[in-house]
Amino acid sequence: MNISLSTLKRLPIYLHYLKNIADSRRYISATFLARELALGQVQVRKDLSAVGAGGKPKTGYETNELKSRIESVLGCKSRASAILIGAGNLGRALLAHNGFRDFGLYVLAGFDTDSRVVGKEFSGKMIYHIGGLEEYLKTNNVRLGILTLPDAYAQETADKLIAGGVRGIWNFTNTHIKHPQSVAVQSENMAASLALLNMKMANK
Amino acid sequence: MNISLSTLKRLPIYLHYLKNIADSRRYISATFLARELALGQVQVRKDLSAVGAGGKPKTGYETNELKSRIESVLGCKSRASAILIGAGNLGRALLAHNGFRDFGLYVLAGFDTDSRVVGKEFSGKMIYHIGGLEEYLKTNNVRLGILTLPDAYAQETADKLIAGGVRGIWNFTNTHIKHPQSVAVQSENMAASLALLNMKMANK
Repeated sequence: MNISLSTLKRLPIYLHYLKNIADSRRYISATFLARELALGQVQVRKDLSAVGAGGKPKTGYETNELKSRIESVLGCKSRASAILIGAGNLGRALLAHNGFRDFGLYVLAGFDTDSRVVGKEFSGKMIYHIGGLEEYLKTNNVRLGILTLPDAYAQETADKLIAGGVRGIWNFTNTHIKHPQSVAVQSENMAASLALLNMKMANK
Repeated sequence: MNISLSTLKRLPIYLHYLKNIADSRRYISATFLARELALGQVQVRKDLSAVGAGGKPKTGYETNELKSRIESVLGCKSRASAILIGAGNLGRALLAHNGFRDFGLYVLAGFDTDSRVVGKEFSGKMIYHIGGLEEYLKTNNVRLGILTLPDAYAQETADKLIAGGVRGIWNFTNTHIKHPQSVAVQSENMAASLALLNMKMANK
């Protein structure tokens, strides 16, 4: 499926809205949705057509079917196991965020070097010592690694994850991760987001 | 200045690298930088030209000048005061993240309703009761509001922030924020990022 990044970014917004109204409305029109979410009508129609939803003239889209299609595209119906490396403030916040399950991501455990967190559970997830990473990857089927550790350790840890069979890396560090073509990397860059917001503000 | 989102996302990566080597190299070439960061040479040249950096044939870019230009674009030299609404796990992680200062963002305080956090300091920032938000905005010059509260309260809180003079909103909720043209909103959508990573993995 070929869905643009801008459409993809709006899908969780539609989904969030549809979940809240699904019981009260069997059908929903693009016009109504556009007005409720303060989006353009053309944009809404384009987004919904990108997920393969077909609206009927006058009645609109069936709410539950539309919700289901968006959930499929967002991976809510899939199931991927993940581990998190770096149980500092951001890492622990992500461990506590149960919302990832709604999108098919199950975080199994965390890894760190700090003796204050190793061996403890946070939000029901055990933090292991990083020294046991390779062994853990051998005995567990981990598809995804989340990097919330200091920048300086990002590349070597990514290398270990990839060698251990991880196919995707969600990178919250400022390090550019070198990786083979067979592995997908998605970087969350808070600094770039902040810079983008600053620029938007300056241009208002 | 007109800088593409993809260039903007790479700027913190260059900056991070340049900060680490600035003392050891007076000049740096695009070829060298591209190889070190595993990026394309053409891309690096385009990115650096977008920030207004002029490289000299053979010698390359002056490392410190390049660093300084990127810092300007990323807003590192500006100073914006922010408050954070919602001192839950993610909110407290962001309060603890001193790295925002490097990008000109100073978080003054947090707001919440939970009596377990109200009146306490986290990472040196006081958490006030949300009931005092309007008064706080009257007496402090706050340019930016960070929303890390439950989705259901996002819009009403954004409305209060905007009424109180806030010009930018950094939205970590799943709610689409309706706002006047004069206000900039930047949404961080973890779900969309996760979906994007899932899609990248599926296409490998």
